[in-house]
Amino acid sequence: MAGVEQVRAAPRPSLDALARLLRGDLDRVNRLIVERMQSPVALIPQLAGHIVAGGGKRLRPMLTLGCARLCGYRGDRHIALAAAVEFIHTATLLHDDVVDASELRRGRDTANAVWGNKPAVLVGDFLFSRSFELMVADGSLRVLAILSRASAVIAEGEVMQLMTTGNMATTEAEYLAVIEAKTAELFAAASRIGAVLGERPPAEEEALDRFGRNLGIAFQLVDDLLDYSAHEAELGKSVGDDFRDGKVTLPVLLAFARGNDDERVFWRRAIEELDQRPGDLERAIELVERHGAITETLARARLYAAAAARALAPFPDLPEKRALVAAAAFAGDRSF
Amino acid sequence: MAGVEQVRAAPRPSLDALARLLRGDLDRVNRLIVERMQSPVALIPQLAGHIVAGGGKRLRPMLTLGCARLCGYRGDRHIALAAAVEFIHTATLLHDDVVDASELRRGRDTANAVWGNKPAVLVGDFLFSRSFELMVADGSLRVLAILSRASAVIAEGEVMQLMTTGNMATTEAEYLAVIEAKTAELFAAASRIGAVLGERPPAEEEALDRFGRNLGIAFQLVDDLLDYSAHEAELGKSVGDDFRDGKVTLPVLLAFARGNDDERVFWRRAIEELDQRPGDLERAIELVERHGAITETLARARLYAAAAARALAPFPDLPEKRALVAAAAFAGDRSF
Repeated sequence: MAGVEQVRAAPRPSLDALARLLRGDLDRVNRLIVERMQSPVALIPQLAGHIVAGGGKRLRPMLTLGCARLCGYRGDRHIALAAAVEFIHTATLLHDDVVDASELRRGRDTANAVWGNKPAVLVGDFLFSRSFELMVADGSLRVLAILSRASAVIAEGEVMQLMTTGNMATTEAEYLAVIEAKTAELFAAASRIGAVLGERPPAEEEALDRFGRNLGIAFQLVDDLLDYSAHEAELGKSVGDDFRDGKVTLPVLLAFARGNDDERVFWRRAIEELDQRPGDLERAIELVERHGAITETLARARLYAAAAARALAPFPDLPEKRALVAAAAFAGDRSF
Repeated sequence: MAGVEQVRAAPRPSLDALARLLRGDLDRVNRLIVERMQSPVALIPQLAGHIVAGGGKRLRPMLTLGCARLCGYRGDRHIALAAAVEFIHTATLLHDDVVDASELRRGRDTANAVWGNKPAVLVGDFLFSRSFELMVADGSLRVLAILSRASAVIAEGEVMQLMTTGNMATTEAEYLAVIEAKTAELFAAASRIGAVLGERPPAEEEALDRFGRNLGIAFQLVDDLLDYSAHEAELGKSVGDDFRDGKVTLPVLLAFARGNDDERVFWRRAIEELDQRPGDLERAIELVERHGAITETLARARLYAAAAARALAPFPDLPEKRALVAAAAFAGDRSF
């Protein structure tokens, strides 16, 4: 990630502070996740366990836990709701990997690669249902409204993404609408729930939504640039996945806009016609770097991360706040 | 359906009485379904509209509407909850057709055949989310608990079905567990909601659950026998779909148990190894008929339909009750 190394000076931000603060809570969330993914149908916990144990960062449940504590919440309900958020995320991952026919996630075989598409679709449905069962047991219609709405928006975002795939006429605004819906909406909902648990006024709910939403956009921007820059081992997913799928992400849009006619012919052939030849991915990476599309995407990610941090202004300067600000910085500047 | 014709004397039962009683309500449900499947993402209403308009019988929402009225409910909430039930059903149909790689449903191309698997998976997720949004707007945690639990059980049933597919060692008990979970659970939940709306005592809730559950088992038994007996045009789905998928249904289990060694070799080759040759489906249909497996499956379906009718004993003899009894008889004796 040469382009990134050049613009970075300070030590890379991390989730460590947040993970340290929330360690006990996070252990309880992980135990609840394992408990609630059980089923007499053995394949379900087997397949769900594969993806749940797959080394995810648990960023979304950490936002629920951290925001709840930032809002002064001292009860136990945040544990189950954080697990519900992670189940929604896991269900969408399972379905995404089927939709993208992905074979690797975080350096491991995907569930669909191991067990086939059929159980991956159905176990996704199971986890999605379990998520709602957890919310129903919690009993807050407000939380149910937030997360059922978020789930619908995520699905809309995924369908929108299908429609921009292979389409070099996609605008930056359309790209942003896709990543806001498919990724940032769940970060926003996960954060907003903290204010609901803390019974904070609407303005603070809105502030946490804005925090999660901007953090989520930063997160997805970095995800999209890593596809053109990181080393496979470091990233834990296959570099070039998006390119091979013909996904139109910001690095591609920027390189396309800044490229010459020859380059545009290349992008159209590779992305729109999916006519890809040996050396094409290397050329794509070279073009994206040469036109500063990586640096520019990273700069935008940092703007969103900064907006996320600013959204926390109404909250007192607690350790939780500092850790959430660091998590936002991490979302906008990470190498995995 | 020669076997069936022989054992039947009275005119075929139908859903007409129920449909007549509920006509106004059902129109409102259909309008709400169309309204709530809208999205700014055009492909979503397009694809959802294809399956929603595909000539489904709306049997599950009719059970919610009919049971609510049987329980003396006179408000409006049953409309939204019936739509929520139908959305769950539609979402599972979309995912089923992807899982089974089906190309025809009710005589029309499946959504996955027209648009591909990707949007079919994602629009299923969207409709599932919409279903929960409808329930959340209704505001009953009791209904949410019933339907989120049912959704998880349905997914478990579908995964169980994957594990019995291609396995001639499947027992009748395992087969029954599969169809109870994948099909009857939603019929049970749809019916039970009627008692919740009518604020009836637990015993009546249980009675309606039993009604829907038995009706659902009868419905699936007939579905499974039609795959070996009906004409494609009449049935509106491809005869032999289950056979080609290697699904182990009751007609197959009965014919296998009653067959000689040669026949068992045939079933193992066709179902377990999926090594199917020209004439195999015809042979399967012939074996299933010759061993009385169609007649026996139909007889069992009628037993479940009768149990469904008996479950309504605690309720007064209203037109709704008579129409629901007729619906149960229809589930156990239909040709489409």
